[in-house]
Amino acid sequence: MLHKKSQIQKGSKAIHLILNPRSVAIYGANNSGASLACIQLMNIIISGYKGHVYPIHLKLESVMGFKAYKSIADVPEIPDLVVIVLPPRVVPQVFKECGDKGVKRLIIISGGFRELIGDRENPLTEEINQIANDYGMRFIGPNCLGVFNNWLDPQNEGKLFNIAIWEKLKRNKFSIASQSGTLSSHIFFDPENLDLGLGKSISVGNEANIDIVDCLEYYKDDDETEVIGLYIEEIKRGKRFLELAKEITPKKPIIAIYGGGSEAGNRALTSHTGSLGGNSKMYDAVFKGTGIIKTNKVQEFLDLALFFSRGVLPKGNRLGIITNSGGPGTMLANNAEKKGLIVPELSESLQDKLKEMLPVTASFKNPIDVTFDMNLPYYYITLPELLMKSGEVDILVQYGVVGFQDVMDNYLKNEKIAAHADFQKQDQEKSAELAKKLILPTIENSKKYSVPIFHISPQNLNSPWSKKLRKNGAMLFKLWDRPIGVITKACKYAEFKRKHS
Amino acid sequence: MLHKKSQIQKGSKAIHLILNPRSVAIYGANNSGASLACIQLMNIIISGYKGHVYPIHLKLESVMGFKAYKSIADVPEIPDLVVIVLPPRVVPQVFKECGDKGVKRLIIISGGFRELIGDRENPLTEEINQIANDYGMRFIGPNCLGVFNNWLDPQNEGKLFNIAIWEKLKRNKFSIASQSGTLSSHIFFDPENLDLGLGKSISVGNEANIDIVDCLEYYKDDDETEVIGLYIEEIKRGKRFLELAKEITPKKPIIAIYGGGSEAGNRALTSHTGSLGGNSKMYDAVFKGTGIIKTNKVQEFLDLALFFSRGVLPKGNRLGIITNSGGPGTMLANNAEKKGLIVPELSESLQDKLKEMLPVTASFKNPIDVTFDMNLPYYYITLPELLMKSGEVDILVQYGVVGFQDVMDNYLKNEKIAAHADFQKQDQEKSAELAKKLILPTIENSKKYSVPIFHISPQNLNSPWSKKLRKNGAMLFKLWDRPIGVITKACKYAEFKRKHS
Repeated sequence: MLHKKSQIQKGSKAIHLILNPRSVAIYGANNSGASLACIQLMNIIISGYKGHVYPIHLKLESVMGFKAYKSIADVPEIPDLVVIVLPPRVVPQVFKECGDKGVKRLIIISGGFRELIGDRENPLTEEINQIANDYGMRFIGPNCLGVFNNWLDPQNEGKLFNIAIWEKLKRNKFSIASQSGTLSSHIFFDPENLDLGLGKSISVGNEANIDIVDCLEYYKDDDETEVIGLYIEEIKRGKRFLELAKEITPKKPIIAIYGGGSEAGNRALTSHTGSLGGNSKMYDAVFKGTGIIKTNKVQEFLDLALFFSRGVLPKGNRLGIITNSGGPGTMLANNAEKKGLIVPELSESLQDKLKEMLPVTASFKNPIDVTFDMNLPYYYITLPELLMKSGEVDILVQYGVVGFQDVMDNYLKNEKIAAHADFQKQDQEKSAELAKKLILPTIENSKKYSVPIFHISPQNLNSPWSKKLRKNGAMLFKLWDRPIGVITKACKYAEFKRKHS
Repeated sequence: MLHKKSQIQKGSKAIHLILNPRSVAIYGANNSGASLACIQLMNIIISGYKGHVYPIHLKLESVMGFKAYKSIADVPEIPDLVVIVLPPRVVPQVFKECGDKGVKRLIIISGGFRELIGDRENPLTEEINQIANDYGMRFIGPNCLGVFNNWLDPQNEGKLFNIAIWEKLKRNKFSIASQSGTLSSHIFFDPENLDLGLGKSISVGNEANIDIVDCLEYYKDDDETEVIGLYIEEIKRGKRFLELAKEITPKKPIIAIYGGGSEAGNRALTSHTGSLGGNSKMYDAVFKGTGIIKTNKVQEFLDLALFFSRGVLPKGNRLGIITNSGGPGTMLANNAEKKGLIVPELSESLQDKLKEMLPVTASFKNPIDVTFDMNLPYYYITLPELLMKSGEVDILVQYGVVGFQDVMDNYLKNEKIAAHADFQKQDQEKSAELAKKLILPTIENSKKYSVPIFHISPQNLNSPWSKKLRKNGAMLFKLWDRPIGVITKACKYAEFKRKHS
């Protein structure tokens, strides 16, 4: 039974249903683990998915404990979603069988649809698209890594629909649409990005049917998405992309990597997706005109996502620097000015206020160097608050939030030191209480005064004190390089938003 | 008894002895842990230092298990080195007592020597320098964090002299001299820099006596130093610095951060060291003219140190990119070309050789996208070797060195999967053997053909497979951003070296 084109689902609606299926059939999985389909099925299992799962397999009775079916026709219901990891030549036939069953949404993981076969063109993309159109089906791919939805059950953070990502990620409102599977799925293992998390992610692959513009349309009205990340190699529907981007950016920041532009980059694209990457300058202009935040570094993409997920935007581009060490303060000031940020000398009256509290060897002008002689409540709470309230700076970076007691605990591991030291191991419970008391007021003040604050510690992000700061919401970095780039782009976006909303 | 100036030790000789003392006296330490001197003494203890240690304390009988002395005069020998952490006003008297004892080398950790006292100038620096000259003493500081020497016993990697660094670091031939204590001591905790290590480090502080030029002079002829890292805020002896730098750079790379240049940066410097930072453009010119490798990022400073510590320099600036995923390959190519590197299209004959081995969906031009269909020995050994041998590329970046078995092991933690999977947990011993077999030949080839290779994995650097690769010498990165900047600067330095040696 064929369906008319008018019955074809809107891309954004199809995406919503693909991210929230009540049942899934999967082609290509077995029990050996040695295929993408197996990994995807195992991802479904460990994600605690409660919908029905139907592996389709010609020979196996069961796959990973699920009853297997010889054909989609045998499945006892119409699955909400079908995932296909099969050699491309058999996909048209599978598409027809799915269409006959009444399936409306699919994901094709496998590649090999656009690449040349010897010297001949490969008509498979057109073939499956025609079948999909005939049956009123929508699909993601081919040549993609699937989807991830941390919001399957909004009431329950533990429940998700995930066929794409190996790692468990905290839930937030940052969502990705990507023309690279790696950028949608494999960038989350960084020990420096422990606090980011993810909302939704869609690997669009070759975009034979659903494209990145559909994703943008979906994210535009999605309440569970507040920050959007894109990896773009080409945009096929440029006009609609521009319209959507202009509509979205005054409300939700869009962070984008554009992967084309150079000769070798375009050569890679041609091989990778069969398409031409286009002109880098054109994309630069598009991004600038629409207020899209552009980056060419994955790390900055993630850092920007972390920053915007916190939801505090600066009111200007004046940076206040608090440090307990000269070198990092100087480098921060230097790099900030080079990027066009302002590091203002503080007013006499504000300096006088700071002088009351700081030792004589301290510096009050900005960078504010408190030296090592510091009291913690002043350093963590009072000093940032004085600066936030002053109206003289719009963003703060604070270097030196060190867990000094962790350092001491480490020395006590040495027998000789333990035998002679007057001090003792810290009480972890008290220390956790202290971290909370020191950080929460500043996080609150950051929101109240709309002054973002970056914390930087020379210690490992997984050191006990660092973990406590992060747990209470500190945006913590290990070194002082990365915040400056993020701040520069955050300020530009904040300015754009002020002008356009 | 006063000494004539002619008896004053050369700075570089004094540095050698300060880094290798047979005995140390330390002022300011107690058992409470609450001072820098305590930390330094505890660092000495955990470093396994076997020389004599003499805490000087007016009241305590013993400090951290060492017999304490009321005055330096009571110490039963002339200590090779004296470390002072005391309020600045008492330091001149301590200096005189040390001089009377016959002490020749000191480190002053405390600050407060150059800063204004109210509105008056502070003459303490001149005062202690005069005393040092009168007694023929040399000293590091004031306002510094001390020194670190991983080569105290060249035959024994476990033995070191360390009063500066909290963490145990692998030994290598990368040595630092820094006008910021933080840059000399607190940048090594990064989980992304596990493989770097350190040879020696000197925090020069305010340089009242021994300066960064002395350090350069020392490192120039030091067999245990092959790569030099500098953090510079100002150079007082510019002429000698230039001479030395020109002499060193054709043999040993110098990586430098210059912390001045901007208005706020100079303001921070004025507060921090009491000196003027000077002109950024002047320093740019100095660095360029002398072949010094400049960076303004700590992370890049560390990455460059890691790269140069491996000792393989590229013969040109043509980059070969191997990937199993399109996105990272495209981004690498793009960013490389933007930085002026060449990503050459490979010759037909080389492409033909690659085609024999790679699946039809792969791409052979450069980036070489092997797709997911790969055999490990080909991917890790044969493919890099084909490229290294070809003479068509000078550096390689390989994305996707994934520990797929780690991923599988992780799924097996799930009970349902474990109950139904046909595959089993990997044998860690076999896996370690495999990593060795796959990586070592490529590391050897890298040296043989002088083609550096960067490995990139989306997995955490501490994941089991990543650890195995690192253990066998792979230069492993988590994301693909950072190698490009390193490669660009490495190529420039290699070109400089070819011209100047």
